[in-house]
Amino acid sequence: MAFGWIDEQAELRRRAGLVRTLRPRAADTPLLDLASNDYLGLARHPEVTEGAAAAARTWGGGATGSRLVTGTTELHAELERELAAFCGFEAALVLSSGYAANLAAVTALAPHGSRIVSDAGNHASLIDGCRLARGATHVAAHGDPDAVRKAFQEHDGPALAVSDTVFSVDGDAAPLAELAAVCRERGAGLVLDDAHGLGVLGDGGRGAPHAAGLAGADDVVVTVTLSKSLGSQGGAVLGPARVIGHLVNTARTFIFDTGLAPAAAGAALAALGLLRREPGRAARAGAVARELHGRLTAAGLEAVRPDAAVVSVRAPSPEQAVRWAADCRAAGLAVGCFRPPSVPDGVSRLRLTARADLSGAEIERAVRVVGETRP
Amino acid sequence: MAFGWIDEQAELRRRAGLVRTLRPRAADTPLLDLASNDYLGLARHPEVTEGAAAAARTWGGGATGSRLVTGTTELHAELERELAAFCGFEAALVLSSGYAANLAAVTALAPHGSRIVSDAGNHASLIDGCRLARGATHVAAHGDPDAVRKAFQEHDGPALAVSDTVFSVDGDAAPLAELAAVCRERGAGLVLDDAHGLGVLGDGGRGAPHAAGLAGADDVVVTVTLSKSLGSQGGAVLGPARVIGHLVNTARTFIFDTGLAPAAAGAALAALGLLRREPGRAARAGAVARELHGRLTAAGLEAVRPDAAVVSVRAPSPEQAVRWAADCRAAGLAVGCFRPPSVPDGVSRLRLTARADLSGAEIERAVRVVGETRP
Repeated sequence: MAFGWIDEQAELRRRAGLVRTLRPRAADTPLLDLASNDYLGLARHPEVTEGAAAAARTWGGGATGSRLVTGTTELHAELERELAAFCGFEAALVLSSGYAANLAAVTALAPHGSRIVSDAGNHASLIDGCRLARGATHVAAHGDPDAVRKAFQEHDGPALAVSDTVFSVDGDAAPLAELAAVCRERGAGLVLDDAHGLGVLGDGGRGAPHAAGLAGADDVVVTVTLSKSLGSQGGAVLGPARVIGHLVNTARTFIFDTGLAPAAAGAALAALGLLRREPGRAARAGAVARELHGRLTAAGLEAVRPDAAVVSVRAPSPEQAVRWAADCRAAGLAVGCFRPPSVPDGVSRLRLTARADLSGAEIERAVRVVGETRP
Repeated sequence: MAFGWIDEQAELRRRAGLVRTLRPRAADTPLLDLASNDYLGLARHPEVTEGAAAAARTWGGGATGSRLVTGTTELHAELERELAAFCGFEAALVLSSGYAANLAAVTALAPHGSRIVSDAGNHASLIDGCRLARGATHVAAHGDPDAVRKAFQEHDGPALAVSDTVFSVDGDAAPLAELAAVCRERGAGLVLDDAHGLGVLGDGGRGAPHAAGLAGADDVVVTVTLSKSLGSQGGAVLGPARVIGHLVNTARTFIFDTGLAPAAAGAALAALGLLRREPGRAARAGAVARELHGRLTAAGLEAVRPDAAVVSVRAPSPEQAVRWAADCRAAGLAVGCFRPPSVPDGVSRLRLTARADLSGAEIERAVRVVGETRP
């Protein structure tokens, strides 16, 4: 029978306790949310939701076509100008997701004959970008600029280093300045995914590349998502205008996809406006993360020191991680649970996200629940 | 210099007259739109835009996380139930784009050791799905079930045929019944991309697989987009519940992407409601396409007989296609212009989409402008 083999795989997952199921949430839930990536608490902000609603009314429910045909509205152009200006880049290109933005950037900038050097901890979308690209990929040890230098030395053609700025599993930051220096020695390009940096790191949330002095550099391309700190959906590539023009002409996930829905563009624009007016939100997210980390380690839990707004807590096994997260949930706290195959090192974790709008009492409650339910 | 090689490519594009640029459109334009994929004219329908607005207000500007963490709302579940019921499948899974849906379906259903047989005219997203999949891809001649049968015979392991139902460039339909029969002979799975069929073909717009009697079959998986007939953004995979469960557990573009924005889910749900209440819209889109085709060929133009709502008109060269589309635009008519490298056969075309809500006078005007501006 067609697809017969998937039943065997399903049985193996069942036996290993690794079955994933969807759990639809209600609009209003009493759960305290430390599981989402809504770092600044903007997804439900009235200015953001009104930005979405107004854009849908003015521009329609969808973009109606590829960005190259009918799918570019003046709203998309405004969002691109604003994203580029906010993050300090010459130009920006908005796509329907951060995943699509990463596929676009990596495939367009790693032609046949090039070498891509990709950090071992990179997000799935960067990895898939490497797999789709015509260039050959070398996976370098996590967070190790010397490994990147060595991988460059083994190759003659165009070269590209690819890295998350903040790694999604442990919330640790990449050594951006050293990475950029290694790329410049070699004349290589650098693609940085700032999905977990935008809105949290850098002056007023301008992101990790901005904080590292890399914004606007002619050899640095940054991808961001609109679906985390900006509370919307979509992704963007930021970089020199000539690189953005190259993507418009060659990136398949840009050319052959429908443009981002106007509502998502409107929501992201409203969130950027809020971030400009209230720059303290970014620093607050980081402070909450450090406070969470401090209290969790004081309670004897093994947590990774956060470089942004993700706090990762080690669990003894996948089964115990799942039970731990379920026990937190039963006690009113939603936390993420990362386990194989979603973790590169096979170590299971609880993943807590430090929203900027968490109160002191909520932080205290979260730490108490995580501690009381530990396996 | 990093990225130096892109300037050479840009120069080659300039010399070949193949530079693509973005042209932001205003919210209200006097242009007659035969370029978008808004086949039923629903993108600006007040019920659809209010569906988007209400969903953003109730659920937020974004889904806030992966569908496996916080990104599944009751609205997503409702949309999945409604899509599956409308198209006649057991289950559905909504992703952030049709591109992501195709990557998910093909990669999850073509494991290591499998053979994928892919139609030569397939959309870029299916092709990228084949390139990302662990199985090995064989490209079969366009619309040729015998070529698929032959490709299956050369292989022993699991097999999968992959095809658009309506091909986006020429608007021609795949021989679905024959393709399904060839798959069943072999015990192979069949993945069909119904992006251009949903809302246009089948009873009340239930799509090409429904029209071919393949809806709900245990060996058929269908991908659809929410961004064409449904006037929104996003994509979905439809199929047996066990296949959908397999995707939830294994499809990287589902697991590692933020869930679809609530506004897009709300817009698509509203469009499905309209389609149920006003099933005549679907047949009207096809009738408009056939009328456009009849009048264009009567005027001496070389157009492909439309199987759905896309009418393709041959142009003598890429340069003349570009000029032709520009002349149409100057005369108040927006049409698509497909040219290398977006066309598999190197033939440039104008691409006209037959919206269900075009009036007789608008059809007449479109045909007159295309005829008067012909190269």
